[in-house]
Amino acid sequence: MGNPFDGVDTSNTPYTIVSSDTHAGLQVEEYREYLESRFHPDFDEWVETRHMHRRLMEEVNGEYVAQWEGENELGLQGAYDPEIRDKELDADGIAGEVIFADGDAVTGQESPPFGAGLAAGQITDPELAFAGARAHNRWLEEFCATNPVRRAGVALVPVIHGVEQSVKEVEALADKPGIRGVMVPTMWHDNPSYGHESYDPFWAACADAGLVVHTHSGEGDWDAYNGNLAQFVLEVPFWTHRILWQLLLSGTFDRFPNLKYAVVECGSYWLGDLLWKADTSFGANSKVKKLNSMTKGLVEKLPSEYLGTNVFIGASAMSTEEIRRRHTNGIDALMWGTDYPHPEGSWPNTVERLETDFQEVSIEDTRLLLGLNAIECYDLDADGLGEIAARVGPTPEKLNQDPDLRTPDNAIREARWWFDAYGMEWKD
Amino acid sequence: MGNPFDGVDTSNTPYTIVSSDTHAGLQVEEYREYLESRFHPDFDEWVETRHMHRRLMEEVNGEYVAQWEGENELGLQGAYDPEIRDKELDADGIAGEVIFADGDAVTGQESPPFGAGLAAGQITDPELAFAGARAHNRWLEEFCATNPVRRAGVALVPVIHGVEQSVKEVEALADKPGIRGVMVPTMWHDNPSYGHESYDPFWAACADAGLVVHTHSGEGDWDAYNGNLAQFVLEVPFWTHRILWQLLLSGTFDRFPNLKYAVVECGSYWLGDLLWKADTSFGANSKVKKLNSMTKGLVEKLPSEYLGTNVFIGASAMSTEEIRRRHTNGIDALMWGTDYPHPEGSWPNTVERLETDFQEVSIEDTRLLLGLNAIECYDLDADGLGEIAARVGPTPEKLNQDPDLRTPDNAIREARWWFDAYGMEWKD
Repeated sequence: MGNPFDGVDTSNTPYTIVSSDTHAGLQVEEYREYLESRFHPDFDEWVETRHMHRRLMEEVNGEYVAQWEGENELGLQGAYDPEIRDKELDADGIAGEVIFADGDAVTGQESPPFGAGLAAGQITDPELAFAGARAHNRWLEEFCATNPVRRAGVALVPVIHGVEQSVKEVEALADKPGIRGVMVPTMWHDNPSYGHESYDPFWAACADAGLVVHTHSGEGDWDAYNGNLAQFVLEVPFWTHRILWQLLLSGTFDRFPNLKYAVVECGSYWLGDLLWKADTSFGANSKVKKLNSMTKGLVEKLPSEYLGTNVFIGASAMSTEEIRRRHTNGIDALMWGTDYPHPEGSWPNTVERLETDFQEVSIEDTRLLLGLNAIECYDLDADGLGEIAARVGPTPEKLNQDPDLRTPDNAIREARWWFDAYGMEWKD
Repeated sequence: MGNPFDGVDTSNTPYTIVSSDTHAGLQVEEYREYLESRFHPDFDEWVETRHMHRRLMEEVNGEYVAQWEGENELGLQGAYDPEIRDKELDADGIAGEVIFADGDAVTGQESPPFGAGLAAGQITDPELAFAGARAHNRWLEEFCATNPVRRAGVALVPVIHGVEQSVKEVEALADKPGIRGVMVPTMWHDNPSYGHESYDPFWAACADAGLVVHTHSGEGDWDAYNGNLAQFVLEVPFWTHRILWQLLLSGTFDRFPNLKYAVVECGSYWLGDLLWKADTSFGANSKVKKLNSMTKGLVEKLPSEYLGTNVFIGASAMSTEEIRRRHTNGIDALMWGTDYPHPEGSWPNTVERLETDFQEVSIEDTRLLLGLNAIECYDLDADGLGEIAARVGPTPEKLNQDPDLRTPDNAIREARWWFDAYGMEWKD
């Protein structure tokens, strides 16, 4: 298959940056017109609880809320205003973006009805779950249509609440030009887990529609934390990427070879070690015979071989340590993201951050991480994005990079040390 | 506090190896006499299910069962025969051992009544859970008394089924000479999670009694796997070490500074990255102000600073990659284990494995990993163990080690790269 960095443009052309993780959403009350009217009474009650949540946040964390919203007043309006949004993306050096729900991460005032976005798994009424998701999807289609080259929307599909209904939703989304993916609830709660065969019609529909399936960090096992948020923060990556292994080890990508899945905003530091463990234990080429039999006939390739084709990692604003581990974790699968307009990400200082963090990264690796992998994953309009990037993207020179630094041909093999250590066959 | 490897004997004296992970248990039916007679009817039914399980294992995996049991016929009897056991330990180079339940990992014929050992969390009737645990504990006391210098027993306490009763059990165990720890169920199921304050009397009792609290791999989220064992294998470390973060981040080691906890047989590869994440986010010295407040007043030190005092890692037969990461993961906390008489470990070829895997490790590091850390954790009789080791332990020369290789003074600081990368204060 060759190296993913072979043939990548190493000139000083500006980077086409695609943020694999942005958020957008209406102010909660404004979703009303996108929601079927029979849900309005429930909706009005829910809006009230959201406003109470806002007041609570102001009470417990008022100083931080005031500072964040004061310093970024205009930019935060880009959560729902396309003109402001484009200016913010321009200033941040971003050509394209993959858009998730929940614009407001600080006080939760831009969530889809009934919390159908990042906390969708916590909705217990399937009717409300689908109604809230559809309201957001209707608005998202309009929003993405304001600049279809630039925006790739991720629609909401609460598949744990009904596979059949979700298949219909996916079929309806298939021909919507701005929609490039769907997000499912991170946790399945009391429903079948994602490796269960009952979901197969849904994976088939997503593969047929060319829609990338996502989980995005947000949910955790709330009952377990006794109010201790540190426990949530430390284990939320597990809950977010758990579905990856459910899909992979149950052979979902073998049954649906066109299916793509991306896990978003849970870092990538955990990935290399799990690939080591999975590669050496499972898959046709693995060496642990006792374990190997567990996936025999289900999983045809080694787990790491699904990265960059079926599996992508929306790694958001990677730490420098995660950038350093890029060849272990998947140089053809990792996608930078700014998390705009959330405070945890790199916005509004993305270029400054790239200037520091990518100094020792080759230009070809940088192009993959910042844009090319996302273009591949979402089948985006590379030419159209390149035109925007020519205007707003930072150049390698701007990122203080050495124009002569090349990625060594054996970079991936060296980084995936377990092939040699366990005597496993390496396929070039 | 100085470096843990300072002053460690670097001569060619044989290693005092303490296996931090061995297993012992009666053949299921022989637990009857250790069980209160009112539970005998339930017990007889349970024994039948165990025998059915044996027949099932022979059907689906007969070739493997026959081979394993054939090749190791005598050694496997050491699960309950102390004389055979001591000969096996001798031949394997092992001076001391930390003993968990469930001698038979292949067909489950040496489990405590009602599965009160490694699968204790799956028992739903608290009465049976405690009855089964007590039966094993009675036998374990006798078994450890056969060679008290050598054997450190880990008793069973199903604390999720009753804190008050568990406290009494711990108080009763406190003066039993061969008992050095207690094992609690790995998962809490529908009960409060281990960070909940309702467990405080239990942690207090364990700290007072000088009994090390353990979780040992075994349980997983079985409902989630749809029969796909690979998913279990890949995520079982999470379920096993999850309690570590529940205890640490809820400030349990600050409230009970004498409490010790060890997580056993779930590897150590996951540890360094979680220490990086936890150190940089939580604790007095951390740099992420927004997250830092989550543990303020609860967690007084940095998470990595609890290793080697409150937290130990029963890392069993570490992979060479895990040995390589020893300074990141905790050179004063990691403890080698053979897993005797289970097939996943190094028995009966421990010395051969050490000869290969420890060639590039300094003698002082090796002494910590193979024995000194366990002696510290369990407060074992170092002199008594040393006498056994003089007879059975391999020397550094036998392990093909360079007698002049010393651990650099700054080895831990270099390995815990996040202190410098995040500008955190390093305490020597």
